Amino acid sequence: MTSLKQPDNTAILLIHCPDQKGILASVTDFINVNKGNILYLDQHVDRKEDVFFMRVEWSLEQFTIPREKIEDYFNTLFAQKYQMTFRLYFGNIKPKMAIFVSKMSHCLYDLLAHYEAGDWNVEIPCVVSNHPDLESIVKKFNIPFEYFPITKENKDAQEDREMEMLASYGVDFVVLARYMQIISDQFVSAYPNKIINIHHSTLPAFVGARPYHAAYERGVKIIGATSHYVTADLDAGPIIEQDVARITHKDTVEMMIHRGQDIEKIVLSRAVEKHIERKILVYKNRTVVFA
Amino acid sequence: MTSLKQPDNTAILLIHCPDQKGILASVTDFINVNKGNILYLDQHVDRKEDVFFMRVEWSLEQFTIPREKIEDYFNTLFAQKYQMTFRLYFGNIKPKMAIFVSKMSHCLYDLLAHYEAGDWNVEIPCVVSNHPDLESIVKKFNIPFEYFPITKENKDAQEDREMEMLASYGVDFVVLARYMQIISDQFVSAYPNKIINIHHSTLPAFVGARPYHAAYERGVKIIGATSHYVTADLDAGPIIEQDVARITHKDTVEMMIHRGQDIEKIVLSRAVEKHIERKILVYKNRTVVFA
Amino acid sequence: MTSLKQPDNTAILLIHCPDQKGILASVTDFINVNKGNILYLDQHVDRKEDVFFMRVEWSLEQFTIPREKIEDYFNTLFAQKYQMTFRLYFGNIKPKMAIFVSKMSHCLYDLLAHYEAGDWNVEIPCVVSNHPDLESIVKKFNIPFEYFPITKENKDAQEDREMEMLASYGVDFVVLARYMQIISDQFVSAYPNKIINIHHSTLPAFVGARPYHAAYERGVKIIGATSHYVTADLDAGPIIEQDVARITHKDTVEMMIHRGQDIEKIVLSRAVEKHIERKILVYKNRTVVFA
Amino acid sequence: MTSLKQPDNTAILLIHCPDQKGILASVTDFINVNKGNILYLDQHVDRKEDVFFMRVEWSLEQFTIPREKIEDYFNTLFAQKYQMTFRLYFGNIKPKMAIFVSKMSHCLYDLLAHYEAGDWNVEIPCVVSNHPDLESIVKKFNIPFEYFPITKENKDAQEDREMEMLASYGVDFVVLARYMQIISDQFVSAYPNKIINIHHSTLPAFVGARPYHAAYERGVKIIGATSHYVTADLDAGPIIEQDVARITHKDTVEMMIHRGQDIEKIVLSRAVEKHIERKILVYKNRTVVFA
Repeated sequence: MTSLKQPDNTAILLIHCPDQKGILASVTDFINVNKGNILYLDQHVDRKEDVFFMRVEWSLEQFTIPREKIEDYFNTLFAQKYQMTFRLYFGNIKPKMAIFVSKMSHCLYDLLAHYEAGDWNVEIPCVVSNHPDLESIVKKFNIPFEYFPITKENKDAQEDREMEMLASYGVDFVVLARYMQIISDQFVSAYPNKIINIHHSTLPAFVGARPYHAAYERGVKIIGATSHYVTADLDAGPIIEQDVARITHKDTVEMMIHRGQDIEKIVLSRAVEKHIERKILVYKNRTVVFA
Repeated sequence: MTSLKQPDNTAILLIHCPDQKGILASVTDFINVNKGNILYLDQHVDRKEDVFFMRVEWSLEQFTIPREKIEDYFNTLFAQKYQMTFRLYFGNIKPKMAIFVSKMSHCLYDLLAHYEAGDWNVEIPCVVSNHPDLESIVKKFNIPFEYFPITKENKDAQEDREMEMLASYGVDFVVLARYMQIISDQFVSAYPNKIINIHHSTLPAFVGARPYHAAYERGVKIIGATSHYVTADLDAGPIIEQDVARITHKDTVEMMIHRGQDIEKIVLSRAVEKHIERKILVYKNRTVVFA
Repeated sequence: MTSLKQPDNTAILLIHCPDQKGILASVTDFINVNKGNILYLDQHVDRKEDVFFMRVEWSLEQFTIPREKIEDYFNTLFAQKYQMTFRLYFGNIKPKMAIFVSKMSHCLYDLLAHYEAGDWNVEIPCVVSNHPDLESIVKKFNIPFEYFPITKENKDAQEDREMEMLASYGVDFVVLARYMQIISDQFVSAYPNKIINIHHSTLPAFVGARPYHAAYERGVKIIGATSHYVTADLDAGPIIEQDVARITHKDTVEMMIHRGQDIEKIVLSRAVEKHIERKILVYKNRTVVFA
Repeated sequence: MTSLKQPDNTAILLIHCPDQKGILASVTDFINVNKGNILYLDQHVDRKEDVFFMRVEWSLEQFTIPREKIEDYFNTLFAQKYQMTFRLYFGNIKPKMAIFVSKMSHCLYDLLAHYEAGDWNVEIPCVVSNHPDLESIVKKFNIPFEYFPITKENKDAQEDREMEMLASYGVDFVVLARYMQIISDQFVSAYPNKIINIHHSTLPAFVGARPYHAAYERGVKIIGATSHYVTADLDAGPIIEQDVARITHKDTVEMMIHRGQDIEKIVLSRAVEKHIERKILVYKNRTVVFA
């Protein structure tokens, strides 16, 4: 699926700012005038908050502004004028993703299968775990397995070591692939909107531990999973993607857990893909996820 | 869709009891031996609770036990032996359903459209409302519209009058079709597992008022609706049916409300249909809903 | 749901043209410069066909070009330059929709329920039928019921009369709400992309008559419905909306027909809503349906 | 997920026969009387065909008939009396599954991830391919990779060799995990209802090659996948499972292919799981799939 990878020589802008007349026209005009060929453009206006969101990607083939100067130009010409918050990415720079796991392999396999198939424009420099169980899987894929057992006593120290290690690998964002350990606020604040978690319920239902057991007790007819950015509040960060499956009275907790694993892995992989494609903007604990 | 209506001359048994060997064999044998032709049989064993559930429907054409004696026979032969809770219905007796509404018409129309099309083996003797808004719709269908405005002061008295009226109509069960008023415990206890409500969220998410507003604030990517039997705990009764729809960042609260109405009406009508078809059993705040 | 109705004093442009640099900037600039406040903007580039699609809606409150001159200005300034095909609508002009039915009421009721609730910015001047069965329903809603029985012999003549009648009512578009009669090419060509049909399968599966029976025979596990614009080729016109439901081996043809009716009515109503909102563009037998 | 694996010491019966009174009672009585503890029981009556279907699983712990005699007893006591077709399995005998692949890895990875996680009571003695591309993946899992390149000239001979090899491995059933090669009738007839294919459309739509391209051309709003048993007719065998995803005008063929891969792998794995669990019965080109 190499055709889905972002073309090398492109620039991607993610923008949000107070909605004002002429922003879209100005930005597209800026790209056009400087001979950038727009490959992708999507925008959204939140009319309740009066905020404008935009993702634009253009070819740098004949773009007359050198790539190292684009940020500066854009900042000068638009960002201040429109009070913009913006991020600039280049299609040829692969983000580095660390995967955190514990004992369950279904999400890990799904991420690694996409990775190995070349579906995503990403690098995975390491897999981190608080349990040794999945080491043999990670080794199959020739990825370093970094084992950090966590206890109440050593948690702060181990997280410090983890963050050092992530920095040494140049990790850009973290994926918690059923990592069964709460991340400290300190860690979370080091990766704002850069830690993606998968929770095995349709949040905000069944926050916290053992959501399938709680769903069974409540007698729901639909189960689901939620991928979200991690914030200081447990399971309360900005939701990226959700999906569900129907169940019946025949489904035991064990069957719900089993059915749920398919949803979890698909929902997590979709969120990771959107993040890699630079298609997610966060505003006031909600996401804009472009198609 | 008359073909879906239950054939007239049938008996329906809904059973649950502690799981024991031979129940299914005994019950089906009882029907067979007495020349009942089984038209429907579904059973479920909850292995966690060790409870057996069963729905069986058979033709009374050549059944040798007279219909007025079936309950007694069954009670004597099986119910005591197996510690059964059972209910017996006859296909030619239409249950009577009262619909409670307030101001929104989408669920009401959907119920009445099914009713008028003859989809359901039910009678609707009256529609009850705490607001006058939908009277003209109800009149179109030639159904009495019973208007009971509710205030804090008159609530108990009005509910007493409502219950008298329901009794006078011989109402068997009540459907709250977006009835925006909490029913008192006294009323609820008069209709155990006989009041069906539609809540406009996938419970247990967003219990209470304004669930779409809460869903919008939380930034969910999926909205839904839940039909459930009403119990003394708000929005906490046994769930009958749920369904969902995907939304995106483009959906405002108003669009969610609008999209949600389609889900609400479908989910409510499906629950009502299952109830009319005598396919729902309740056990420990969960439902067994046979196909 | 009055909040979903289009605000009165707006203009809506639906555009498609060969993709070229600067179109979006030019059009939005044109609106901005003339003091139009953009309320909705969505665009799509089909990179395979190199075609640009756009829907823009703006307030005319302070727009400096008088509404009767907008089309002319837009034509002169943009349409020729960019080889545009465009349509201009005004939010305060309600399109007129005729509903064609035969014997089944579920889609009719759903359309009329939306209509009566004021969900849609539309008028329904008449309901047309080739059978008398649904007259009493239509009468309830105080809408003229136009009965045109069709035989092989009188079909051409009756369609001529129907078209005259539609013209006399000023009908803009036609909704076939389970109208069980093939429309002639002559009729179809008089309403290009203005006749919406609901077919009770997920096209292109099960084209033609009795799709649920065919689905049953094939043993599918999913059934569905498709709304599409009618073209000269049976069930082959541009698809607007589709949806599905899971079935199992327990579902008989009759149960599939019954389950399917819910999908049909929802899928048809969604398509009608999008059409009324002027959010559908057709290109090469495919639709662009804006959110 | 070891809890989902079938308990070792059980027997499973899959039965179908003309519907007659007393079958269910007789069979369950037979098991009860001989001290078998029923762990699973589901039945279905196809009232159109008048055929009775049943799956029953019981513990052999205290069962008084020795396992090697069960088939004979059952045959004598019931099969002839009721004109039954039945199959008997034992929970402690793992079926052997061969996977056939070509170049795409997504279904293969999903099957192997389930296998490695111990989700399924199955053995995978070999993976077969007509292309060398996926050898390295298979090697990771320490499974023999059997490479059989196929040309028009060598096809018959290669299939003969494949069947010999499958026999030597004791393979019970075959899974075509996006194996891009039509299997000959001779091969198919050697594995009746024992070859599971995944087709990347919601059959019967888009039979044959390049279904996503065809779906794109037709402008559908929903894509899907179908797993089915392979018969002599291309893509026309009994359907086991289907699922879908919504798409929009924004989805290119490449995006549909990518989205579709998630559906394909899930739909295939679910079908394989049901087959391994002995929950599928085939009758007249349709499947009964027990929950």
